[in-house]
Amino acid sequence: MSTPSIFNKKDQASVDTLRILAVEMVEKANSGHPGLPLGAAPLTYVIWTRFLKHDPKCPSWPDRDRFVLSPGHGSALLYAWLHLAGYGLTIDDLKNFRQWDSPTPGHPEFGLTPGVEVSTGPLGHGLAMGVGLAMAERALAARFNRPGFELFNHYTYALVSDGDLMEGVASEAASLAGAQALGKLIYLYDDNGMTIEGSTEITFTEDVRGRFLAYGWQVIVVSDGEDLAAVYQAIENARLEKEKPSLIMGRTVLGAGSPKAGTPGAHGEPLGAEGLAATKAHYGFEGKPPFFVDERVTKNFQVRSETFYEDRLKWEGLLAEYGRKYPELLAEFNRRWQGSLPEAFDQAIGIDFPKGGQFATRSTSGTVINAIAPALPELIGGSADLAPSNKTKLDGLDFFGPLNPSGRNIHYGIREQAMGAVMNGLAAHGGLIPFGGTFLVFSDFVRPAIRLSALMSLKVIYVFTHDSVGVGEDGPTHQPVEHIAALRTIPNLLVFRPADAYESAASWKAALSAKGPSALLLSRQNLPVLHPEEFPQVLTGTAKGGYVLREAQGGQAEAIIIATGSEVALALETQKLLAGKIRVRVVSLPSWELFAAQPEAYRNQVLPPEITRRVAAEAGRSIGWERWVGDKGKVLAIEGFGHSAPAGRIFKELGFTSENLGRIIEALF
Amino acid sequence: MSTPSIFNKKDQASVDTLRILAVEMVEKANSGHPGLPLGAAPLTYVIWTRFLKHDPKCPSWPDRDRFVLSPGHGSALLYAWLHLAGYGLTIDDLKNFRQWDSPTPGHPEFGLTPGVEVSTGPLGHGLAMGVGLAMAERALAARFNRPGFELFNHYTYALVSDGDLMEGVASEAASLAGAQALGKLIYLYDDNGMTIEGSTEITFTEDVRGRFLAYGWQVIVVSDGEDLAAVYQAIENARLEKEKPSLIMGRTVLGAGSPKAGTPGAHGEPLGAEGLAATKAHYGFEGKPPFFVDERVTKNFQVRSETFYEDRLKWEGLLAEYGRKYPELLAEFNRRWQGSLPEAFDQAIGIDFPKGGQFATRSTSGTVINAIAPALPELIGGSADLAPSNKTKLDGLDFFGPLNPSGRNIHYGIREQAMGAVMNGLAAHGGLIPFGGTFLVFSDFVRPAIRLSALMSLKVIYVFTHDSVGVGEDGPTHQPVEHIAALRTIPNLLVFRPADAYESAASWKAALSAKGPSALLLSRQNLPVLHPEEFPQVLTGTAKGGYVLREAQGGQAEAIIIATGSEVALALETQKLLAGKIRVRVVSLPSWELFAAQPEAYRNQVLPPEITRRVAAEAGRSIGWERWVGDKGKVLAIEGFGHSAPAGRIFKELGFTSENLGRIIEALF
Repeated sequence: MSTPSIFNKKDQASVDTLRILAVEMVEKANSGHPGLPLGAAPLTYVIWTRFLKHDPKCPSWPDRDRFVLSPGHGSALLYAWLHLAGYGLTIDDLKNFRQWDSPTPGHPEFGLTPGVEVSTGPLGHGLAMGVGLAMAERALAARFNRPGFELFNHYTYALVSDGDLMEGVASEAASLAGAQALGKLIYLYDDNGMTIEGSTEITFTEDVRGRFLAYGWQVIVVSDGEDLAAVYQAIENARLEKEKPSLIMGRTVLGAGSPKAGTPGAHGEPLGAEGLAATKAHYGFEGKPPFFVDERVTKNFQVRSETFYEDRLKWEGLLAEYGRKYPELLAEFNRRWQGSLPEAFDQAIGIDFPKGGQFATRSTSGTVINAIAPALPELIGGSADLAPSNKTKLDGLDFFGPLNPSGRNIHYGIREQAMGAVMNGLAAHGGLIPFGGTFLVFSDFVRPAIRLSALMSLKVIYVFTHDSVGVGEDGPTHQPVEHIAALRTIPNLLVFRPADAYESAASWKAALSAKGPSALLLSRQNLPVLHPEEFPQVLTGTAKGGYVLREAQGGQAEAIIIATGSEVALALETQKLLAGKIRVRVVSLPSWELFAAQPEAYRNQVLPPEITRRVAAEAGRSIGWERWVGDKGKVLAIEGFGHSAPAGRIFKELGFTSENLGRIIEALF
Repeated sequence: MSTPSIFNKKDQASVDTLRILAVEMVEKANSGHPGLPLGAAPLTYVIWTRFLKHDPKCPSWPDRDRFVLSPGHGSALLYAWLHLAGYGLTIDDLKNFRQWDSPTPGHPEFGLTPGVEVSTGPLGHGLAMGVGLAMAERALAARFNRPGFELFNHYTYALVSDGDLMEGVASEAASLAGAQALGKLIYLYDDNGMTIEGSTEITFTEDVRGRFLAYGWQVIVVSDGEDLAAVYQAIENARLEKEKPSLIMGRTVLGAGSPKAGTPGAHGEPLGAEGLAATKAHYGFEGKPPFFVDERVTKNFQVRSETFYEDRLKWEGLLAEYGRKYPELLAEFNRRWQGSLPEAFDQAIGIDFPKGGQFATRSTSGTVINAIAPALPELIGGSADLAPSNKTKLDGLDFFGPLNPSGRNIHYGIREQAMGAVMNGLAAHGGLIPFGGTFLVFSDFVRPAIRLSALMSLKVIYVFTHDSVGVGEDGPTHQPVEHIAALRTIPNLLVFRPADAYESAASWKAALSAKGPSALLLSRQNLPVLHPEEFPQVLTGTAKGGYVLREAQGGQAEAIIIATGSEVALALETQKLLAGKIRVRVVSLPSWELFAAQPEAYRNQVLPPEITRRVAAEAGRSIGWERWVGDKGKVLAIEGFGHSAPAGRIFKELGFTSENLGRIIEALF
């Protein structure tokens, strides 16, 4: 099976240069992970130089193959290659590995370093995001490819590790990839049998091959990961399999060639001067200065780069011709790649909801996405098996899969964390805006993915319904209490808790217009429509995060109720109840983050400093509300877990009545 | 293989009564899940009446078999059985299904309803907690059993569902269970091929049998889950396999016998009057009043209850004899079962740390657990493959496993969420206090389990090290920023961020003395010892959550710095820097929750309302700090993601220097 002729000494020297550059970086930084680069360099070298379709001169080429280093701690290997491949990383950048403001941070960071497709480090997530990247390729090919114009036809490769495979999110994603029959997904497993606590035998005794076969993958074993030709052949075979993702298990040695080879100690600390010298000697770099690169090695990578460049120019030519034949599709392609919304969008989202109507915001969210879906072909959504509850189904559109690559609904299955990670992959690919739903209480399962959305600033929209004890009978395991606050703690995440149909449409609009991720927290229960005839600010207020929903009547306000979501109706009721006694202003605050970003003058207009009698009402924990109510304010909140009972009863028992809220306000006087 | 003689008409009538009671409950509540009870009742009936060792008169019997209903939404089935089995649930309780304050909430709640072993609902977690229950049995048997005295010899059974198997946490736990060779773990898979969004074919196409074989489980297929004798035989075979956990795949029909049988609609809503009538007719309950139980069925369960009772009495006798022969072991057994700490504990934890010393709190945490481990045999710990970093290893003790059942260290593997769930199982079993470590940033992966620890009020101790940007070079994917705040949002969880060695010991003491779960957030980097000679309050202050660490010098304080963890040293430095200029008090606030629980008088003593010039310093997001600093206060916090660089550089760049903190305080004047 092997075709040794295609690899020669220059290749081996190139592999070893990747290794030595990586361990030199770690040594110079006095911090990092030498073990993975030493062991896995042969695997990645074969992908990078023999298969990966890419152009270092244009890292954003839409039809490039994607490569994901799922064990992000091996970043030095990736940077060494990006340097040699001509991505613009200099030797000085390599020398600044893990230093302040360098493009070579400890773990690969999306958006910072050209050639890094996704941020990796939290194990399992690179593997799972790769599934999203591959799904994106299929979706975009279905939308844009035309006979003779294969605009999208690329592979997704990843290096994955023991740690990735142990993580639950990887299991979820691998099962989904099997069900999705992602034939263009090819993973190389750096099977080094070693984790931080010791041999994988201590707790990872499973039959990985059997497990992936069970998921519906093709599994190819390469008994010697150093054998470039065998790795090559395995990848060739993986590419031949069109209907299954492939896992290539490459047996490697952690820290190969170093004195610590095959021990946990090789994983995460510099080799030390002596160890480094021994390793360099092992690979024929004895006496070579730090960061040495042989000219032939430089040239080896350069030659490849020129081929890449030609491939990409050919594609650019194809695109130009495509534009002449399909000008509308090209316009759509360009718009989507730039991430701008279509002209038709504003009109589509300008939905009229009936005055006097009562709708759950999960339902109006469903109305919104269905209204905008035709105008926004990049919108692709789904749910972790709760579509009927989350109202995330795009009606009249197929479910995405190998037989329906144009489908824009995704059955994620009961795999919340993978859903988040796959959405990150879909968004990182470019050309798509993913949304995904589950119950708010299960945002806990999604959290590692949400963090990565925020860190990467990806436009991913999380639809979290059943947003409070309003869930009712399902009880405390299904009732979010801490989740509104917990989501607000994540940097760079916009959290929206709309009060009604109009605010839910405005939240979608703000989320789709944002640069980063958003979470929409939506009610299970019906809420009254805040019709613009009565509440004109409802149309523009949400985009500012907070606004005066209804001013105090009969004079200047002497107290303020600040509420979000379902509690806004309660606030209005209470305002009415106190009418004639206390002049209460009602402020709706659907998004803390957007409100905090407003000019101080606006914030002071909504929450005048002189009005210190403030009560916040929100069906969740009070933590953080002091920011808005101040030292003299109060918060009607829920500090403990929920209860199983009809929702109305729970709200009443927990004091979410206008009478009780009224009493709290009166007590401020 | 089948032994039909052991089941008769009475058994079938009993199965059908479980079914009908369950759907009547759902109907009466007008809310709930009829599908699972109708489909899975035969599976659970066989476990409950033929295998489960238990005594309804003593639900806390330590050597009972454990039964977990992992798909907690099928609670009506469990309650119907608990009623019939004599656990004290009345027909009225069944009629109050899902109502305020009833013992029959929407999902089973640990601590509320006798016979419920763990709270279930979040899918995958019941399955994973069962692994912990089975590990607990092994650990306790190793500790307490003596020849002729098998105090612990019981099985862990669970019903698991498609949803459980799709969740990543289940994959992690199942892989761990295989590695642990848990022969006494027997799971029945309610293989009904149906989820909320449709047939499992839509996205769950994997070969479950192959996957579990790969994990090292025995898998037994029962092609007709209605065949009681076949289910019986499968469980018998599962019990014969001593070295592998068993998965029995019972093919069932969701909503069997109802008009919606085999459709997603059978899952989660009442059958409706007509559907209920048709279902009752199908099972021969036509014309029977709601909640009808035939006398023969009542008797069928009663007869079994008497046997249970005798089994348990026999065990009590054995225990008494054991106590005569091994009085010390019995005393330990009783103490552990009651959950009280041994007399030797206080002395063991009273560690002297050297004045002038510098230690990371992760290291002093390691010192603490090693100091107390001999006195506290119920302490069993581990890490998600980060023991050397988390310092969670109990030196000189084995790693727990089939060959070392006395081991008190656990290799959890890179499976954070399963670690949390398994700890919940270990704690829920009784007799053990589990702790488990990972990096604080990965507390996101553990969060669903932490929530369940808190909801169940289990004494589980989460050891989260590398608690800030102090992580340094690993960069933003590994640097917690939002996690301190995010953990504080969880109700009933004690969060500790100790400032030094003494506070870390005191935090452990408080955590071990608490009723519910705790999270210890520990530094990677060294922190100066706050020696009691200089800071006498350090010994008692942590238990109160917050205290005056060092009073302002030269007169009454005019400003307060409130800090936690690594920022306490910064606060002391700043106090010194400002000496002679501003009289600053330094307050250490390691646990908000404990401090908030102190009497107001104490809180006002530490944070006098009249001192409004307050600055908080914490290397994380500021959300919530307004509670302590007030309207006029400031917070030195980190609002964005971290950076890859040496820790010192990061802290400096982000303003965590005494100069900057000093300026912030000066600006308040």
